Amino acid sequence: SDYGKDLFTFTLPPPSTLPEQVLDVDNATPDSHVPRDARLIRLTGVHPFNVEPPLTALFKEGFLTSPELFYVRNHGAVPHVQDENVPNWEFSIEGMVANPIRITLKQLLSDYENVTCPITLVCAGNRRKEQNMIRKSKGFSWGPAGVSTALFTGVIMADVIRRAMPLRKARYVCMEGADKLPNGYYGTSVKLNWVMDPNRGIMLAHKMNGEPLMPDHGKPLRAVIPGQIGGRSVKWLKKLILTAEPSDNWYHIYDNRVLPTMVDPDESSRNPAWWKDDRYAIYDLSPNAATAQPAHDEQLVLADAPTMYMTRGYAYSGGGRRITRVEVSMDQGKTWRLANIEYAEDQYRKYEDKQLFGGRLDMDWRETSFCWCFWNLEISVAELREAKDVVVRAMDESMNIMPKEMYWSVLGMMNNPWFRIAIHKENGVLRFEHPTQPALMPGGWMDRVKKAGGNLSNGQWGERVEGQEMETV
Amino acid sequence: SDYGKDLFTFTLPPPSTLPEQVLDVDNATPDSHVPRDARLIRLTGVHPFNVEPPLTALFKEGFLTSPELFYVRNHGAVPHVQDENVPNWEFSIEGMVANPIRITLKQLLSDYENVTCPITLVCAGNRRKEQNMIRKSKGFSWGPAGVSTALFTGVIMADVIRRAMPLRKARYVCMEGADKLPNGYYGTSVKLNWVMDPNRGIMLAHKMNGEPLMPDHGKPLRAVIPGQIGGRSVKWLKKLILTAEPSDNWYHIYDNRVLPTMVDPDESSRNPAWWKDDRYAIYDLSPNAATAQPAHDEQLVLADAPTMYMTRGYAYSGGGRRITRVEVSMDQGKTWRLANIEYAEDQYRKYEDKQLFGGRLDMDWRETSFCWCFWNLEISVAELREAKDVVVRAMDESMNIMPKEMYWSVLGMMNNPWFRIAIHKENGVLRFEHPTQPALMPGGWMDRVKKAGGNLSNGQWGERVEGQEMETV
Repeated sequence: SDYGKDLFTFTLPPPSTLPEQVLDVDNATPDSHVPRDARLIRLTGVHPFNVEPPLTALFKEGFLTSPELFYVRNHGAVPHVQDENVPNWEFSIEGMVANPIRITLKQLLSDYENVTCPITLVCAGNRRKEQNMIRKSKGFSWGPAGVSTALFTGVIMADVIRRAMPLRKARYVCMEGADKLPNGYYGTSVKLNWVMDPNRGIMLAHKMNGEPLMPDHGKPLRAVIPGQIGGRSVKWLKKLILTAEPSDNWYHIYDNRVLPTMVDPDESSRNPAWWKDDRYAIYDLSPNAATAQPAHDEQLVLADAPTMYMTRGYAYSGGGRRITRVEVSMDQGKTWRLANIEYAEDQYRKYEDKQLFGGRLDMDWRETSFCWCFWNLEISVAELREAKDVVVRAMDESMNIMPKEMYWSVLGMMNNPWFRIAIHKENGVLRFEHPTQPALMPGGWMDRVKKAGGNLSNGQWGERVEGQEMETV
Repeated sequence: SDYGKDLFTFTLPPPSTLPEQVLDVDNATPDSHVPRDARLIRLTGVHPFNVEPPLTALFKEGFLTSPELFYVRNHGAVPHVQDENVPNWEFSIEGMVANPIRITLKQLLSDYENVTCPITLVCAGNRRKEQNMIRKSKGFSWGPAGVSTALFTGVIMADVIRRAMPLRKARYVCMEGADKLPNGYYGTSVKLNWVMDPNRGIMLAHKMNGEPLMPDHGKPLRAVIPGQIGGRSVKWLKKLILTAEPSDNWYHIYDNRVLPTMVDPDESSRNPAWWKDDRYAIYDLSPNAATAQPAHDEQLVLADAPTMYMTRGYAYSGGGRRITRVEVSMDQGKTWRLANIEYAEDQYRKYEDKQLFGGRLDMDWRETSFCWCFWNLEISVAELREAKDVVVRAMDESMNIMPKEMYWSVLGMMNNPWFRIAIHKENGVLRFEHPTQPALMPGGWMDRVKKAGGNLSNGQWGERVEGQEMETV
């Protein structure tokens, strides 16, 4: 029927099989109550649970990521919340407010309007493995799959805070989770004026893709701060505290920062002042992109190859700024070609007041962009044969562009240089090589160049430059 | 007195001598009614008037620029408005509004609150000469002084639009000036939601630094759109027209865009579709910086030199995003040192409801940053002696950084690669060489390298790379 067609012109979540079994590997850990998907790649050993999906699996899911493949960044044990206790989950709004609120999740959901919105979350460490190849940072090795998208359903954070009546001097909203860690509960803050701005879409979510939050994603309640790094979207949310100053939580101060590049690990340990300068705190995401097709180690047999090969990948930016162009180079950046971009997010903008997963689809008036987009470009196989590599870069609506040069910093965050895939011609086969493989997995041209004693900082990705002796580290 | 001290802890405008005489050169032009400062460097011949101040003169004025040195971008003749007609200047709010308004400037100023705020304006073409050295763009050659700052006084645009009662489908505010040009009146648009957002500070200004607007700056009324390129701040403002779509004004479509880099002048002329994709329109400024000290051709006699030399310059970004770090390299970007930054704008934030130039100083609650900042770094002369060059880059609070690589585009706008000064050692003297000189003036290392047949795109600013033959174009 026409009704049915209309209903499905936007993307619905991919088929999802929520894991029901706890994996053997988790049984001896504090997370022995958390069923998980075995495909996820563990970046910090068995525990705490920090994972990204295999890039190809993530990309094949399309615009929306199923909750079981959605990347996870946990700092410690997952709070154990039984289903029967979910409605009574207590949550408070306190600090510089005239009317402090203590409320259960059940009340929250009945007292406030629910909305649904597609939002991409990205770990500030996405692509950090590349930084670690150049120089070891104080962070573990994310590949390029620390990014996922879901339809989040929940309450607009501003609605709740308005009812608590912020005092005039309140400027920040501190958030605190239920995850007790060595340095206290996880917490951070964002500006109150951002929370109150409807264009920023900051929410308190209890569902992903129509399902209650899984334990790893903040069951039963989390903040979702669109356009900003995932570290600001506090999971297992217990408190909003309004303050005159940014959060003094240990994790707000000593995590999620891009210190100036000359501050090395020693200097950052010696001098805590570096961590206390709020100018270095990360909020907005910056433009980034990666190629999913060709995959790492994908082989193209030239004898069987079609004339054209389709390259594909993702791109995103921050602060609600749309990716406005994605460009691909086959000659190390001398010339560029323009990729096509699909903005699946825009399909949701057509619907005013449609209900989805128990929330109003809150998109038709919204002009900000909070989701990744997918790019593609057909390249002739004849050209791929002649090229040494294929690099991609993206630019956002504020004309911020991914640079060629890496900005190394002590936490290795916000890594966004051009994403480069090397091409090898071997016995009638083209073999594609991504920069790295996630976690401690070997592979990738950075690993290869480094092992061969090449200098990854030579401005040519460590590759031999014509007429020059190969530099050694 | 204490009162006096308090009053002057923020920067007041520099001593200003408003020109009273029309220069000879303007007498034979349609601007023969416009007194001007002879120091301004004309970028488009005698007429229309497009000028930047000498960089050193601009920088010496400090945080605020006097109106007579403030850069000017005119598309045609300056509308001639006699002083006695200023109060009766008519201005309208029309289009998708329930209550269209036609109002005189006198009424506007008496019916609405006036505010005062320091705002930096920047031409989208700032630093375009560097693009033109790489490949001729469709734009004239700005040096790095297409940027200036003033205290603007006027009415908050949102207040006026609110009274006109925008219809529900209105999404854009089109602005139209009184300057009649070959393709109609100059006009452009911004989003209505930006105009209504108090954090964006969009205003209708009638004073700069406490003086009525000079003819070149929009006498008697202009839009000021902080954090965005100057081309959106329409001068000699006659109309605000609310619409459902972006402006279809010729100057909105065919100016102030960064088309993809592979679109060359021929392709851009052949295919108008490139111009009609709103993703390529420029709104926010992107991070940029330049060095004012050392100046171009400044000489440092080593025999008389002190131990340390102070480098200084400016930096700015867009969209209200603060510059959070400025870094200087003496080894072509291999290592960086952190410059000091002065945020003079922040001095104004301390004052709540103070009156300045007939407007309320509207800064104490504001968290966005709309002004340039000044950076400085002391470098030992011994190091300068050994260095080939000194480059600077800036990063903003969204972690957007000036790239090493230039993004060339057909209009040559938003040029923001690292700002590099070459250092020459000649007979006991260090001579500093900026990249270019504005307009058709010769000089600068880009000019020198180009004349010598060097390839400015070799990734080393056209300089000879050790062990490599110099490439020719």
